[in-house]
Amino acid sequence: MIDGHTILLAHLGYPTTTFKAPLIYNPYFESIGVNAVVMPMGVEAEAYPQVFAALFRLKNIRGALVTMPHKVTTIGLVDELSTAAGIAGSCNAVLLRPDGTLLGDMFDGEGFVRGVLRKGRQVTGARALVVGSGGVGAAIAASLAGAGAAALGLFDVNAASVEALAGRLRAHYPALALEVGSRDPEGYDIVVNATPLGMNEGDPLPMDVDRIAPSAFVGEVVLKRELTPFLAAAQARGCQTQVGTDMLFEQIPAYLEFFGLPTTTPDGLRAVVRVSY
Amino acid sequence: MIDGHTILLAHLGYPTTTFKAPLIYNPYFESIGVNAVVMPMGVEAEAYPQVFAALFRLKNIRGALVTMPHKVTTIGLVDELSTAAGIAGSCNAVLLRPDGTLLGDMFDGEGFVRGVLRKGRQVTGARALVVGSGGVGAAIAASLAGAGAAALGLFDVNAASVEALAGRLRAHYPALALEVGSRDPEGYDIVVNATPLGMNEGDPLPMDVDRIAPSAFVGEVVLKRELTPFLAAAQARGCQTQVGTDMLFEQIPAYLEFFGLPTTTPDGLRAVVRVSY
Repeated sequence: MIDGHTILLAHLGYPTTTFKAPLIYNPYFESIGVNAVVMPMGVEAEAYPQVFAALFRLKNIRGALVTMPHKVTTIGLVDELSTAAGIAGSCNAVLLRPDGTLLGDMFDGEGFVRGVLRKGRQVTGARALVVGSGGVGAAIAASLAGAGAAALGLFDVNAASVEALAGRLRAHYPALALEVGSRDPEGYDIVVNATPLGMNEGDPLPMDVDRIAPSAFVGEVVLKRELTPFLAAAQARGCQTQVGTDMLFEQIPAYLEFFGLPTTTPDGLRAVVRVSY
Repeated sequence: MIDGHTILLAHLGYPTTTFKAPLIYNPYFESIGVNAVVMPMGVEAEAYPQVFAALFRLKNIRGALVTMPHKVTTIGLVDELSTAAGIAGSCNAVLLRPDGTLLGDMFDGEGFVRGVLRKGRQVTGARALVVGSGGVGAAIAASLAGAGAAALGLFDVNAASVEALAGRLRAHYPALALEVGSRDPEGYDIVVNATPLGMNEGDPLPMDVDRIAPSAFVGEVVLKRELTPFLAAAQARGCQTQVGTDMLFEQIPAYLEFFGLPTTTPDGLRAVVRVSY
């Protein structure tokens, strides 16, 4: 029940029609009696800096969830960035701190890593391959590095993008072994599809699944369907897997902590969600 | 249930803690299945022009409800004003039109007049006294004039304010008989307390109730309690009366029409409201 004490979390992006976060956060807030609301706000790119600056002058705003097409732009609009956001080069969460400054963070990678750990797997010391170094791939790579991965393989069809990411990772994690330019999954403990391949019927697989070790943990970022052909093929090899929505539900508790709101587990969220994925 | 299709109505003011509109509009929208939400947004005066301009760049905003301390400032921020808002010199509603322009309106007076008419009384040709020419008093005077009152008596302890209001009324309604500077209710068909007197225990009455004709219709703007000492005294003389919350509930259907949303009656609103007044 929205009233004059409600804390506003702006959900910034465009178009808003596919936004799912309000359908997760708001029923959760209601279920635990927290007077906060995630409000979709459609903002086009050219209006974004103006709207962003103005919104944080509101007295009842706590922060923002940021999505397409503003994740990269937001990097330049905050006062401070987390390491993950800095390496990822994009930002999907902004906190208005009590001193009025804005902290930007990026939770896609954190959600992925939390999912790996919750499934009983190690990230510390692991060798991980991330295929795709767009926003979400870069975020996953940053979080895997932050969680102690020993080696990262990075691949993207855009060579400049992957080199830039590798450079930012090297600067932050000099001890990390980086292998750039191959999407061969052989020898990796954690293998991630961070490309859009799998969203559409007939997409090719993002890599040669036959070369993934059956002992490897295989994750996916595509949200459009739970079991993509890539994950199905990995499961057929005996691999433990993680669906795209796990990354989504795992990152929400991290967001809640970031906003200083009572947090929960992914299962706690799934129990109150009124939307299907 | 807020989702990516939700229409935003910003509720702008500061402080927000006493806001009641979300407690009326949102349950109403829910009850009729309209995907719109009134969201309180606390804005201080110095930030208001910046926030106001930015908010109307949102793609899913339909308009704003405006309250203290921004009703007067808003006059200068819209592209076009209704006659009522222009005469009142303040604005409590802003519509973002499809062409991108902003229309400002003022519904306090409209709510008052609708209440009078709904109670079976005439405004056309009536003689009305409005004591208090602050924002709400000016709005009521403007709407009584717009609804065809033949004569208006205006009084305020601030003589400059009442003279300015009279000047704006004269310019718009040259045939209207204006009597400025007396709060003697004798001879008036409609008598309004538009001062804050009655909010606090021990306040003096706003005028000499003994001089109100028993046939007169007596209205009140104080919302803090239903039956103010002024209304109680008027009822004791046999007058038909209107409480402050009637003005509030009568104006909401006008707002809904203004925003192009399905409208209802004050009783329809009262049936779904989860707040006491």
